Amino acid sequence: MSQPEVGPKRLDSRDPGFAAAFRALLEGLREEGTQVGAAVSSIISDVRTRGDDAVIDYTARFDRQTLTAETLRIPDAEIKAARKLATPETVAALELAAARIRAFHERQMPEDFSYTDAAGVGLGARWTSLGAAGLYVPGGKANYPSSVLMNAIPAKVAGVPRLVMVVPTPDGIVNPLVLVAAEISGVDEVYRIGGAQAVAALAYGTATITPVDKITGPGNAYVAEAKRQVFGVVGIDMIAGPSEILVVSDRDSDPSWIAADLLSQAEHDEAAQSILITDDADFATAVIAAVERHLSVLPREAIARASWTTHGAVILVPDLMDAVPLIDAIAPEHLELAVADPDALAARVRNAGAIFMGRHTPEAIGDYVAGPNHVLPTSRSARFSSGLSVYDFLKRTTMVRCDAQSIREIGPAAVTLAEAEGLGAHALSVALRLQQ
Amino acid sequence: MSQPEVGPKRLDSRDPGFAAAFRALLEGLREEGTQVGAAVSSIISDVRTRGDDAVIDYTARFDRQTLTAETLRIPDAEIKAARKLATPETVAALELAAARIRAFHERQMPEDFSYTDAAGVGLGARWTSLGAAGLYVPGGKANYPSSVLMNAIPAKVAGVPRLVMVVPTPDGIVNPLVLVAAEISGVDEVYRIGGAQAVAALAYGTATITPVDKITGPGNAYVAEAKRQVFGVVGIDMIAGPSEILVVSDRDSDPSWIAADLLSQAEHDEAAQSILITDDADFATAVIAAVERHLSVLPREAIARASWTTHGAVILVPDLMDAVPLIDAIAPEHLELAVADPDALAARVRNAGAIFMGRHTPEAIGDYVAGPNHVLPTSRSARFSSGLSVYDFLKRTTMVRCDAQSIREIGPAAVTLAEAEGLGAHALSVALRLQQ
Repeated sequence: MSQPEVGPKRLDSRDPGFAAAFRALLEGLREEGTQVGAAVSSIISDVRTRGDDAVIDYTARFDRQTLTAETLRIPDAEIKAARKLATPETVAALELAAARIRAFHERQMPEDFSYTDAAGVGLGARWTSLGAAGLYVPGGKANYPSSVLMNAIPAKVAGVPRLVMVVPTPDGIVNPLVLVAAEISGVDEVYRIGGAQAVAALAYGTATITPVDKITGPGNAYVAEAKRQVFGVVGIDMIAGPSEILVVSDRDSDPSWIAADLLSQAEHDEAAQSILITDDADFATAVIAAVERHLSVLPREAIARASWTTHGAVILVPDLMDAVPLIDAIAPEHLELAVADPDALAARVRNAGAIFMGRHTPEAIGDYVAGPNHVLPTSRSARFSSGLSVYDFLKRTTMVRCDAQSIREIGPAAVTLAEAEGLGAHALSVALRLQQ
Repeated sequence: MSQPEVGPKRLDSRDPGFAAAFRALLEGLREEGTQVGAAVSSIISDVRTRGDDAVIDYTARFDRQTLTAETLRIPDAEIKAARKLATPETVAALELAAARIRAFHERQMPEDFSYTDAAGVGLGARWTSLGAAGLYVPGGKANYPSSVLMNAIPAKVAGVPRLVMVVPTPDGIVNPLVLVAAEISGVDEVYRIGGAQAVAALAYGTATITPVDKITGPGNAYVAEAKRQVFGVVGIDMIAGPSEILVVSDRDSDPSWIAADLLSQAEHDEAAQSILITDDADFATAVIAAVERHLSVLPREAIARASWTTHGAVILVPDLMDAVPLIDAIAPEHLELAVADPDALAARVRNAGAIFMGRHTPEAIGDYVAGPNHVLPTSRSARFSSGLSVYDFLKRTTMVRCDAQSIREIGPAAVTLAEAEGLGAHALSVALRLQQ
């Protein structure tokens, strides 16, 4: 098996150097340093001080758009009119996707519970939606209507009464499909602003924009840094890293299918990572060849090729079950199991954002129409976090109810512990109720 | 009604200046700036480079403890022996608390789901526990065994197989109750280290300490900053701010009880905040007088008095239902409803970490033995986040399964959307499966 001159890394789990090579694949590979902290902090403080005026100034400077407080918001009529700029086929596809995403997220809704225990104490937990959520949608090339659906629909299923979208429209250009997706998802307000100034406006509010409780959605380095800086004032979602796919395939998959799946991540971003694990060296070679064939016809060939060449990898294992510890260490955003018995493998995997089961489930089906969310944990964070869901737009309040009787059951232990911790008022507040 | 010379702010919602005074109460009051970023970043990078040696050096410097790689860990025998240093009554109280916390958190466990929809697509979501969690326990005065229970038990209920605790032992002094609580909760490993060096060791690992996937637990400014800096490499819980309580009471509560409840937060920290909302000015005056009486007998009088005087507030409203918008704006960590009909009020509240229902449910009962978690969202973050729970130690993997048939149902819409977004490989990966 010859190493192609330019192409993905090929690793074999039986090689003596495998552990080190695998670690190198995981570690530090794609750490990105950005030095935008000071610039972002000055924009945020300006928006806090000058409100709409600051937002309007930054929009003029960065998006070459002259706005007023009256034109910051995109009127509902303009949003409705966007449908006429899209093909009926695309609108229908967005509607199908929205219905499927809605149906899946409705299944996710958690239930309140309450009970009275043996001591007579009433206990429970109640879910309520956030009061208002902000959705950041990037302008330019990463301006994806599918991302609007994936962020907005869970918020609306969770019951968020006010969902605000911001989308920069550089030089006045807006993607009509983004507006159609916003309307289909039930977004309540849309503003034609972006960057750190939009994040600051959502977090702190201006005369025109009422602040929200949480901001989700992808963005460039300035947006990500702004979200980091306003965290605490509002909630934020995960800061997403480059996209990743890990495909596990046996020799019976069509190499052309698997190659397309690997490229569907590679074409997102030069920093994206596509990895194939297989137990068949000839199959690996066939997939690599198919990647080359597909690359030449892709509109985003340059990006996909750079990603595949720099970050792509093909790992050979003696048995597909040997993939399990590698999968858990990689903790992939997307895991595709293109094997005869995907259930046997899936049952043993601990860390993955989403699993695509069997040969007929390309990851791209999950990006658009399957129903589960396509916003998933990147950069190994599937070890400790989950994809976007209704939970991101809900919060839990716990409830406790004692009466004169039940506090006598459990109160003395609380007094003992409060005294052991030296917290006299804690002890007193319980002890007073025990004296009756 | 005379304003006491030194005491809490008194506000009346009917006063013309109320809106501004209430806003001042909410905003910026307790923002703490800490300039420890650079120091923490240098400690973390040192631990990444030198591992155990760096941890041992910082422990010698900050905790005046001479350790070796062999003595970093507290042996199980020493943990078991701690029981003999505690009174049987305290151990029994910890065991009662642990059993109640366990029972409540078991009720929280979410369920997996899977179904096949009308298009024939298999969909589902599966919860798995984190592989390893780290629990930070502060040394010194905020060294609370109840916090060990509240952090460790949800992790174990969630099924985390490896739970690691770190606790600094300055000058070799360790609180035996913290070790007893660790043993009762099922903590698997305990290390006598703290500060940013302990957080770095948990996140990146050393020769002695295997890295974890997430770090929870309170700590000082260095610990909080270290958690911020390692976030992404591992998960972290919320960075907790000072404690808060909001008590809503009618005139029929015992002013002495309510005063003790307000002080049970005030005694935590000079930056803590206690607020009373009532519809009766005389009752408010009686509570303020009772606070003065209690203060004089509290072991932590100075802290409680500073908190109450600086951040305490009493708000008069014409009707208790008028408290609802104020509660939602404050979004209190703890909300106590010491009123005749707590259900009517609770039903209308949106933002609160935990609600304590009725006159016989002091907040302190929830700190120790009620069962729900006492780690709750502070600083108005109950608008968008929830208390610590089993969810913090679980993650969700979504599953999608198409076959040759069902991908024909939903695949064409995916191809349409991928093409609309200019993502050729996405479209190709689906289209290839439609050609069969």
